[in-house]
Amino acid sequence: MKSYEDMALHTDLYQLTMMQTYVLKGLQDQKVVFDMFFRSLPFGHGYAVFAGLEQIIDYLTQLSFSEEDIAYLKSLGFKKEFTDLLSDFRFTGDVYSMKEGEIIFPNEPVLTVEGRIVEALLIETALLNIFNHQTLIATKASRIKQITGEKKTVDFGARRGHGPGASLYGARAAAIGGMEGTSLVKAGKMFHIPVVGTMSHAFVQSFEKEQQAFMAYAEENEGNVVLLVDTFNTLKSGVPNAIRTAEELKKRGKRVDAIRLDSGDMAYLSKEARKMLDGSGFPDIKIAASGDLDEYIISELESQGAAIDMYAVGTKLITAFDQPSLGGVYKLVEVEDEGKRRPRIKLSDNIEKIITPGRKKPYRILNSRTGRVEGDYIALADEKVPQQGRNLLLFDPIYTWKQKTVEDYEAVELQEKVIEKGKKITVHPDIQEIRSYREKALSRFWEEHKRKSNPQVYYVDLSVDLWRLKNKMIEAARSYY
Amino acid sequence: MKSYEDMALHTDLYQLTMMQTYVLKGLQDQKVVFDMFFRSLPFGHGYAVFAGLEQIIDYLTQLSFSEEDIAYLKSLGFKKEFTDLLSDFRFTGDVYSMKEGEIIFPNEPVLTVEGRIVEALLIETALLNIFNHQTLIATKASRIKQITGEKKTVDFGARRGHGPGASLYGARAAAIGGMEGTSLVKAGKMFHIPVVGTMSHAFVQSFEKEQQAFMAYAEENEGNVVLLVDTFNTLKSGVPNAIRTAEELKKRGKRVDAIRLDSGDMAYLSKEARKMLDGSGFPDIKIAASGDLDEYIISELESQGAAIDMYAVGTKLITAFDQPSLGGVYKLVEVEDEGKRRPRIKLSDNIEKIITPGRKKPYRILNSRTGRVEGDYIALADEKVPQQGRNLLLFDPIYTWKQKTVEDYEAVELQEKVIEKGKKITVHPDIQEIRSYREKALSRFWEEHKRKSNPQVYYVDLSVDLWRLKNKMIEAARSYY
Repeated sequence: MKSYEDMALHTDLYQLTMMQTYVLKGLQDQKVVFDMFFRSLPFGHGYAVFAGLEQIIDYLTQLSFSEEDIAYLKSLGFKKEFTDLLSDFRFTGDVYSMKEGEIIFPNEPVLTVEGRIVEALLIETALLNIFNHQTLIATKASRIKQITGEKKTVDFGARRGHGPGASLYGARAAAIGGMEGTSLVKAGKMFHIPVVGTMSHAFVQSFEKEQQAFMAYAEENEGNVVLLVDTFNTLKSGVPNAIRTAEELKKRGKRVDAIRLDSGDMAYLSKEARKMLDGSGFPDIKIAASGDLDEYIISELESQGAAIDMYAVGTKLITAFDQPSLGGVYKLVEVEDEGKRRPRIKLSDNIEKIITPGRKKPYRILNSRTGRVEGDYIALADEKVPQQGRNLLLFDPIYTWKQKTVEDYEAVELQEKVIEKGKKITVHPDIQEIRSYREKALSRFWEEHKRKSNPQVYYVDLSVDLWRLKNKMIEAARSYY
Repeated sequence: MKSYEDMALHTDLYQLTMMQTYVLKGLQDQKVVFDMFFRSLPFGHGYAVFAGLEQIIDYLTQLSFSEEDIAYLKSLGFKKEFTDLLSDFRFTGDVYSMKEGEIIFPNEPVLTVEGRIVEALLIETALLNIFNHQTLIATKASRIKQITGEKKTVDFGARRGHGPGASLYGARAAAIGGMEGTSLVKAGKMFHIPVVGTMSHAFVQSFEKEQQAFMAYAEENEGNVVLLVDTFNTLKSGVPNAIRTAEELKKRGKRVDAIRLDSGDMAYLSKEARKMLDGSGFPDIKIAASGDLDEYIISELESQGAAIDMYAVGTKLITAFDQPSLGGVYKLVEVEDEGKRRPRIKLSDNIEKIITPGRKKPYRILNSRTGRVEGDYIALADEKVPQQGRNLLLFDPIYTWKQKTVEDYEAVELQEKVIEKGKKITVHPDIQEIRSYREKALSRFWEEHKRKSNPQVYYVDLSVDLWRLKNKMIEAARSYY
């Protein structure tokens, strides 16, 4: 993971000035707990898909300052007592995380860091940077895939991502979220994602005639003959030339696999093209569509009966165009003080922005009768939550009168330890495994949580003990000022 | 530029399948010309700021396939005749480009590639990926900087960019666009951008009392004492504690430099905080603001007389939140055929999407009397456009009755050769130079082009010869089908 080396300075300056302060005050070994979570779902979607854990783990386990880094920090005025400690600096804490591909919700700890305050601070920027990006794109991909259903759907966004890194790791996240291929060859190589794509307008233009281009391509790329038909005029030129090419190839025992539409009214064009292909004896030539597609346009196309067999999504997926930021945060929830663990809280005038204090564990509550989800349940880490039980009370932490009791439930712990004393203790699953995990996790949700518009809000509730602690701390902090 | 090595496979699969086709057909050495440009301005802004050239040049001059890359392509089914050529593959063409920091407009060639068809194709994805990202962020930064004017404005976006690469190169682009600092330390180190930042909420929370945190920080970070005042309550706790800290430091001959507001109604809070600071004898303590700011919010704050001295912008800048994609394209405009250069065109039902054919040169037309811009002027490369002259006719290429004559003009050629036969022939300017170039270039524009809403549309016109060629080719292509 080359790109996740040399990342020690991939941090905000204030992390380093704060670290220096702790070091100079002799507080650097204070034990703390930070939770990483996000506050609201993007795109008006009903859930998010966690992605980026592999890169987070690689970053944490490779973290070290080079001599060049240290020299640069000295040039900024950092003091020797501090910079001297950096040559041997490693991340030595423990990390607990949900699995990549997990279905996640606002205000639950996706990942929890336990460590010394200096190391826990330093890593905030990179952790959020990776989490915010990959989770955003995976969520967008999952949202799109829900609309395209069984139809093959692939990522064509490379040129429109926010630079090479965003396109590369965006392709990874898109695959986790459900995309079945990518046009970006390096992503295929690094993450074992199937690569897809055939020809561009420039290729067609570079020949005197459109059909020359089609034939040249078909002759040299058997098995992947997808002809782009909109360079001049889709129905008057592109599709007829594709049919002529298919006829020519048929004589040689070969075939055209598909045509690709990239502009114009795709509902109309796809239906007309389908008729022309069928009418010429080529019902097996598929139709692919690309060109500024997103879940809304695809949904419209599907409802108009477009004859499209495969969708390629680019800009709108790889930039998460309609909401290009997740807004994940990383908050201090506990500080060890003279050997005692003390929960911490941050207030806000906005009640939904007040963090939930303390070292916690998130659980997914499944109804044992239906096998489906009832809600997520966050308890203090030292509370006993039996794996199976009866009559669990779930109540909204703000609107507490909103409550329900689950008669027979199974409580699945969502976090597992992934780093122990700075060492990776899990094996990175491959992309296919992560994608399957996402599919399986999602299958336990109700359709109401998965619909594109106005999904049912999923419950993320607190245990009674945790709720009491939080309210007690809010009161104490408020009365203080 | 570590990140721009190992980029040969950072390309869409179709570039490679097309390359293979040309190679197998013996067409790989066909000479072609591609133009890189964009079609419409983001954010409703009046201009864009070109950024990313340094990375584009690094990419092109380092481009090579590793053995691993070649093995991967073989595993995908690419043929030996093609993959054998890749071990020695280098980019050997010429590149002409506008300068980084240039003020650019839709439909003019920002960068032009002349080379063999196989190399010109391969590079499309990476060129656009870099150009689209950095130009987008530089443009957003320039737009924000126009609103903040003389007030120091910095990039705080690292955690919200689309992954580490997007944040890093986004910080670079933001500096080109006018940001005077970044919180991202690695960007400071790599690009020599001033780094900024002081403390987070977690730092304040980690102490028993807010003022303890302030004092600890102030004692160890002289010269950069910016206290974050909203962890508990800005006016009841944060500002009073900042004042107490300032009083304590004053006794020791030291000082608090600034406070930072990060939430709440910043117009009200900044004015109240200003009064409290002034009233306590600290008129020199500055007020910085951060927290989901963009040009609209800052504009509102300024019009409400907010007492803010410095702005830090994050998410909205680094993700170009309101329009996170530029949509730059790279189009074939000329093909050499039996030694003759033949212009190429791509039609579209949307007249504004029809490309302008041929090898061209863009000029900026300055009015010799005012020293200000009149419009950009695109001519065929072999046309003579005198550097100075009289009575130049500018006319809209679509609405041709929209025209004007510039009596005394200066024509400044906007592109220069940056790569010759694959070798870099210019020196990368540093970020400060690029930023100054942008400022100087922008100073030649009228306020009407620079305003935030409904800016005056800037003319990008064609020479008469180029306009005639384009129309002739449109007619010829249309009559063909």
